[in-house]
Order: sequence, then structure tokens, then C-alpha cells
Amino acid sequence: MAVNYPNGKIYRPVQQAGKTESSKSSYGNRGMTLEEDLNATNEYYLHQGLAVIHKKPTPVQIVNVDYPKRSAAVIKEAYFKQSSTTDYNGVYKGKYIDFEAKETRNSTSFPLQNFHQHQIDHMQNVCRQDGICFVIISAFQQIYLLQAQHLFVFWERMADGGRKSIKKEELEDAAHSIQLGYQARIDYLKILDKLYF
Amino acid sequence: MAVNYPNGKIYRPVQQAGKTESSKSSYGNRGMTLEEDLNATNEYYLHQGLAVIHKKPTPVQIVNVDYPKRSAAVIKEAYFKQSSTTDYNGVYKGKYIDFEAKETRNSTSFPLQNFHQHQIDHMQNVCRQDGICFVIISAFQQIYLLQAQHLFVFWERMADGGRKSIKKEELEDAAHSIQLGYQARIDYLKILDKLYF
Repeated sequence: MAVNYPNGKIYRPVQQAGKTESSKSSYGNRGMTLEEDLNATNEYYLHQGLAVIHKKPTPVQIVNVDYPKRSAAVIKEAYFKQSSTTDYNGVYKGKYIDFEAKETRNSTSFPLQNFHQHQIDHMQNVCRQDGICFVIISAFQQIYLLQAQHLFVFWERMADGGRKSIKKEELEDAAHSIQLGYQARIDYLKILDKLYF
Repeated sequence: MAVNYPNGKIYRPVQQAGKTESSKSSYGNRGMTLEEDLNATNEYYLHQGLAVIHKKPTPVQIVNVDYPKRSAAVIKEAYFKQSSTTDYNGVYKGKYIDFEAKETRNSTSFPLQNFHQHQIDHMQNVCRQDGICFVIISAFQQIYLLQAQHLFVFWERMADGGRKSIKKEELEDAAHSIQLGYQARIDYLKILDKLYF
């Protein structure tokens, strides 16, 4: 069923090359992908002068480039590379902001396989430098902000042989639910204001 | 003439796809490109737990991807996109760090055409958010750190019909010369420590 979104757009599944299974999920038929909503939110923040936060380009290993005489260079062969950092970063009130966005269709838990060790390493490095680091999780018809420090606890539990996911109740407990707005669709700065400023 | 660099590498011109003329320049036959030296510096900072600063991936518009059965996805057609931000960003002591690296072979001035308006816009947005923003310039056999606020002055002079470059003496006056080191090859944190911490 196509569900109308406030801006009139209807749900369309976005096939993104090089994305993992989980990030292809439908984001609850809300009409936009999580990435689109975050990009729109960041654009709103930028234009309002509230924060400067961008999604990083997808890392690509370029192997072969063609330079036609009268037109732009064409990349003829390239491969997706695994990113060594998170997807989003920027500045808010002078502080460094760093986050990753993930989604799941699971109804009872959020699988930790959504993360890679090097992403966790990066988040730990950021925390050590006093940066503000978190994950935005779309799950159970909600958008959550989970601080990296809390994510590490679940990650270490898995490393110690424990469960490979965060239970719905655990996430509800550890994370902060983000209100969906009209202009700032996923208004995560509101949560950061409460937590850090 | 090939000049030996402390680490034993000799000069090799690096042809980088999609880079502008200026960033292809020889970086004074020092044996490494400015980008390589900055990446090595950032890696050193990361491993020493001093700062978390990365170069952003080159932005690419992907048009066509092939998914072979038993191997990795191959990008068959893609184009270089102009970045809407600067190349490097990250966190140092909780503060947001943002910079661009540029070089020139000119011996008397640094051409402002090395920048695009949208990069200046981005730097102004970062400054408004209290981020630490600057340019690392390789020119006149030196490496300089020029704070964005000073760059804006030269940029506005050009916009007002003034000269399209920064004179050598002006740069020496407005910028901070960075010592070349062995491990932190372009040790810009030292300058930031003096200026901001």
C-alpha cells in the first residue's frame, strides 16, 4: 500500500548500490528513506544557520578513467570501498558531531551486524577526542538517537559471547526517541541540546 | 632532478583523476604530494590519539553499476562531482576542525582561483558555528596555515574588483608557517594549539 507523506511524496523503494541489506529496508513506508530525511534535516539546519552537518560521499576506488576530448572525464571502472568512518559529521555550536544512520525491519530487536568493527573503532576514537558521537536508528516505527557510549556496551556484550542484537526494550531504555517534525524532519539537535548543551 | 625525501621516497608526480590543475602540481619536489603528507600526518595523529581527522572521499556521481554473479559490484559509469565542502574534517579536543589543502607553483603569489565560491560559503558556515576552519597552503617552498577569517579578507578584496591572488608577502604576514616534522610531517596541530587552545 502506498502511504502518503506530508510533503505529498509516496513511498518508493530506493535501490542503493553498494549498500548493505539492512540500509535498503523500507524505513516503515514513510515515503522517504532515512537517508533522504536526514539529508533534508541537515539542509534545513544549514539554511537556518543552526548546524553544518553533511553526509560524506560514498568511498569509491577508481581504477580506470576516460578523458574524452570535449566532455567531462568518465569513470569507466571503479569499486565500492568500505568506509573507515561514519557517514555524517559536522559542527554544532563549535562541537564536533559524528553519527551513523541505521535501520532495521526486525520487530523485536536491532541487529548489531549493522555495524563493522572499524566503525566502532572510529566512534571510540571520536569519543576519546570529546566529540559528540551517536547512532540514529530507525526501528519499531520509531527514530532513536543512541549515544555511542551506550552502543559500545551492547557491542562489548556481543564480543563477550552475548546476544548479537539490541532488544527492543533495551533500545527504548538506552536511546532517546526523536520527534518527527515538518521542517527538521528528524530533529536530532533537540536531543543533543538536552544531552550536551 | 630526483630529490630524496627523509623516508627514502623520491619525487614522483601523482596524476590524480578529477583534480584541478593546481592540485596536480609538484609540491616542490619534496618526494610526496601535499595530500600524501597530510594523510600521513592525520594517520600519525590518529594512532597517537591526538586527533581524529580524515580526508573525505572524492564525490562521485554513479550512473551505472554492474553486479556480476560471484564478484564485487563494478561501477561502469560515473562522473566526478564538485564537492560542496572542504576536503578534511574531524575533531581535536572536542572542537570541530575543517580545512582545505591547496598548492601553487607560482613564485610570487597564491592564486585565489584555487577556491570556489561554494567552498568559501562552506568555510563561512563553519566559522559561524564556531568551528576551527583554515587552509593549508603549499607555496614558496613553505607550508602555511591560513585561518579562514584571513582568507575571507583576500576573497572579498577580489570580489570588490581587487587582485585575484594573495601576494607572497601578504601570505607570509597573514598565515602561520608550519614546521615540517618527521612523524607529524605537517604538524598543524601545533599551530592550532597556539591559536585556539
